[in-house]
Amino acid sequence: MSGWLKIVGLGPGSEAMITPEVTAALQDATDVVGYVPYVNRVAPRAGLVRHGSDNREEIRRAEHALQLALEGHRVVVVSSGDPGVFAMAAAVFEALEGGDAQWRRLDIQVLPGISAMLAASASVGAPLGHDFCCINLSDNLKPWALIEKRLRLAAEADFAMAFYNPRSKARPEGFARTLEVLREACGSDRLIIFARAVSSPEESIHVTTLGEATPEMADMRTLVIVGSRQTRLIERDGAPLVYTPRSAD
Amino acid sequence: MSGWLKIVGLGPGSEAMITPEVTAALQDATDVVGYVPYVNRVAPRAGLVRHGSDNREEIRRAEHALQLALEGHRVVVVSSGDPGVFAMAAAVFEALEGGDAQWRRLDIQVLPGISAMLAASASVGAPLGHDFCCINLSDNLKPWALIEKRLRLAAEADFAMAFYNPRSKARPEGFARTLEVLREACGSDRLIIFARAVSSPEESIHVTTLGEATPEMADMRTLVIVGSRQTRLIERDGAPLVYTPRSAD
Repeated sequence: MSGWLKIVGLGPGSEAMITPEVTAALQDATDVVGYVPYVNRVAPRAGLVRHGSDNREEIRRAEHALQLALEGHRVVVVSSGDPGVFAMAAAVFEALEGGDAQWRRLDIQVLPGISAMLAASASVGAPLGHDFCCINLSDNLKPWALIEKRLRLAAEADFAMAFYNPRSKARPEGFARTLEVLREACGSDRLIIFARAVSSPEESIHVTTLGEATPEMADMRTLVIVGSRQTRLIERDGAPLVYTPRSAD
Repeated sequence: MSGWLKIVGLGPGSEAMITPEVTAALQDATDVVGYVPYVNRVAPRAGLVRHGSDNREEIRRAEHALQLALEGHRVVVVSSGDPGVFAMAAAVFEALEGGDAQWRRLDIQVLPGISAMLAASASVGAPLGHDFCCINLSDNLKPWALIEKRLRLAAEADFAMAFYNPRSKARPEGFARTLEVLREACGSDRLIIFARAVSSPEESIHVTTLGEATPEMADMRTLVIVGSRQTRLIERDGAPLVYTPRSAD
């Protein structure tokens, strides 16, 4: 059995943020598997088959990748950002656990990538410089009540918060509710950052407060960061800096 | 003013995890500033001055870097992992906010890196595949009571948890107390991962349960991950896989 499976992160968008080990894996691969826009970030070449599939096809896609590897292919599953943060790695292991027992003998590796959360944080300063949490705001795979419970507990713990998938056309009301819960729990002055398409040509960064924030400031390409009580803004020429100090009391 | 300051992440250890933009910054730099073992990861070359300093010297080091940039140097401040997660970026912004007003006119950029948390997660599968939090267990810069409060709230929120700086010789008791609090809040069967020196030649990964975990399993080079209620272990030939499914109820 000479096939293998590598589940890799392409980072948030810029080629300059793709790690050398991910680039090497893509060069050795016979097959690249993933959501269409991510597969399209891998240049076509002779000897490489690119298998793009639709969103919400994660388990079927994962099974396909595992089967290709079992048949001897050298398979790279691509995610944007990091593959272990709300991305394909968990889907591959779900498929593996529930599927063909032979898949457990495969050579499988996860190669980390620069997550959207880390890139968004870097783009404004260091808002995740102290304790923080990371929550997927999509209620496709969990009940909304659980999201709201986590928001309230995160506010009580005074974590900075990074939010993935804040808002889609199919569920516009969740993020409006998120902002209401957070205004109530954290107050209107709390800093919030909307970091859209970080490191891509369409990048836009917007720093404001919960009191000024509106649901329309986010879409599915936006990573949202809410500061802790300690998070500070430094005014200067050009864009302000936002950071969370290392100490707390 | 032609100087600049880039605060970069060298990743957890392997050269293959350093992003091309960080490599390029190091090639353009006149000065590299950081904690001695991290500065030593940058190869010496003509035209590059390496300024290594001791641990707990972060603010003085940050002020030095800002001043060098103001004097026209091209300065790279290095952290291991990601510079925005319990590392130098927050220290530089603390120094900037409290220091020379001219520092606010500097060209400053943060270049993200593969954080220890993401590398540790990838080394065992995808334990951070669902909502999670990230806590620095050192009580050098915050009271222990705040750490304990956050541990209890994180358990109530059912976050997976990533812990930085679990244990040092100067404060061996904190991590023992952490394990007690978590056993009480999460039960003895909860999965815990000790990922030491990930991606370096000294890497060692140990997966066990809170019931079996002992304080000696961690040191300052260990990133600890505790699963959520949902986190699962897949037995197979070789090392087991650990992942947190994408869905929760």
